[in-house]
Amino acid sequence: MAAELGALEENLGLRRILLFVEYDGTHFAGLQTQAQGERTVQQELEAALARIPGARPKVWPCGRTDAGVHALEMPVHYDTQDRIPVERIPHALNSLLPSDIRALRAREVPLSFHARKSCLWREYRYRILLRRMPPALERHRVWWMPHSLNLIPIRHALEHLVGLHDFRAFAVKEERNTVREIYRAHLEVWPVEGGQEVWLEFVGSGFLRGQVRSMVGTLVEVGLGKRDSDSVRALLRGGSRKEAGPTAPPQGLYFVRAGYEPYRR
Amino acid sequence: MAAELGALEENLGLRRILLFVEYDGTHFAGLQTQAQGERTVQQELEAALARIPGARPKVWPCGRTDAGVHALEMPVHYDTQDRIPVERIPHALNSLLPSDIRALRAREVPLSFHARKSCLWREYRYRILLRRMPPALERHRVWWMPHSLNLIPIRHALEHLVGLHDFRAFAVKEERNTVREIYRAHLEVWPVEGGQEVWLEFVGSGFLRGQVRSMVGTLVEVGLGKRDSDSVRALLRGGSRKEAGPTAPPQGLYFVRAGYEPYRR
Repeated sequence: MAAELGALEENLGLRRILLFVEYDGTHFAGLQTQAQGERTVQQELEAALARIPGARPKVWPCGRTDAGVHALEMPVHYDTQDRIPVERIPHALNSLLPSDIRALRAREVPLSFHARKSCLWREYRYRILLRRMPPALERHRVWWMPHSLNLIPIRHALEHLVGLHDFRAFAVKEERNTVREIYRAHLEVWPVEGGQEVWLEFVGSGFLRGQVRSMVGTLVEVGLGKRDSDSVRALLRGGSRKEAGPTAPPQGLYFVRAGYEPYRR
Repeated sequence: MAAELGALEENLGLRRILLFVEYDGTHFAGLQTQAQGERTVQQELEAALARIPGARPKVWPCGRTDAGVHALEMPVHYDTQDRIPVERIPHALNSLLPSDIRALRAREVPLSFHARKSCLWREYRYRILLRRMPPALERHRVWWMPHSLNLIPIRHALEHLVGLHDFRAFAVKEERNTVREIYRAHLEVWPVEGGQEVWLEFVGSGFLRGQVRSMVGTLVEVGLGKRDSDSVRALLRGGSRKEAGPTAPPQGLYFVRAGYEPYRR
């Protein structure tokens, strides 16, 4: 009874905050803290929360991004007993965060809500810059290549990826359950000075570690004529990692957004 | 006679190369070297040329950009007696340059050609990001503001700027001749996640030191309703610097390109 009262008191006024953050992944060893001494997005967020009296300095991110990978709107949740009005939270945190992480918006969610477990879909984008010479300005933002890509077979291969599949061939490490569902796989082309930019966009229930970058590496091989688009279908029917293409470099990858309602195209 | 022969021999096989470079101005104290010990684009280009046997390690840029200002295609010329085929020069230089400067293309020009003196027009772009929260990814690429801007009076003010005018009110330091001609002053709007991006584009015969950023600072005041668009016309009819708006921050400014043929819209 006393313990229960203690727990009640301890949680008095406890709120769970869902925070959406943008970050430039260039100077981070990734989103999640894995080893001490590495600069991670999680570590910076927790250091900022530690300076807010009442906030518990532990964040739960929706996804996981590797070193060099960016996020336009990554949801994370944390618990707090502070009294900051929810619409002021992003401003309060931005005054404590380094400039390569920005809090964009926040909302209060039930204590049963979980940024990762409650998430129903995630969207990723991969940017490829096709032009003769490498970029100075976008060097940490795109995968540059001096070749041209044949987009027709890439579009064809993207169609194979949509649906419920075993993505084992695209996992960078062993995972128990490698079945995921991709709801949308889309190619967009933008003209840029002296070339074009290709965006590969994926929405899915979830993605294996390294899956998007392995799919992109494989799709680029399709676009270069090194493999045909049907080989992607074969990979989904029981291929191994070494039969898939290389892992695309991190700086072209963006976590775009996550959804907490069922995905609708 | 001996001296003439000496000069002839010294210039044997001398070529003047016009090189177009892109750079990320974030970590430079500007394009031109002014004080020792500062990291400048010029200093890096000259350090790279010093490693090419036969090249004279002195570059002549078309324009001048301040610390933090970027360039998409800045022309510079230099002289060389090396034997590198002109189409290989950008590759050779990129292997010697830091990644925030990229040589894009090169061509041989007559020895009478001068990257700055032969230039007939220059194009600048200024990027303003309008959205509620500051950006992490574009923090060194745009001027962010949380307000909205009224674009109609800005467009009106831009019309006043076109033509041959005395731009003294927009000069950051005293200059002897402050008359310049603006051929084009244009506003472009792009939708972006959670807001919009406004591009202010200027093409002119030349620009005074700080002119583009002072014009942008003044135009932003017009868009915020702090001054009316006719005040811009008044500034061109003999205003002083302190009557114009503030100097916009450097990171939103891009030297886009220069022209060596008369400007045609």
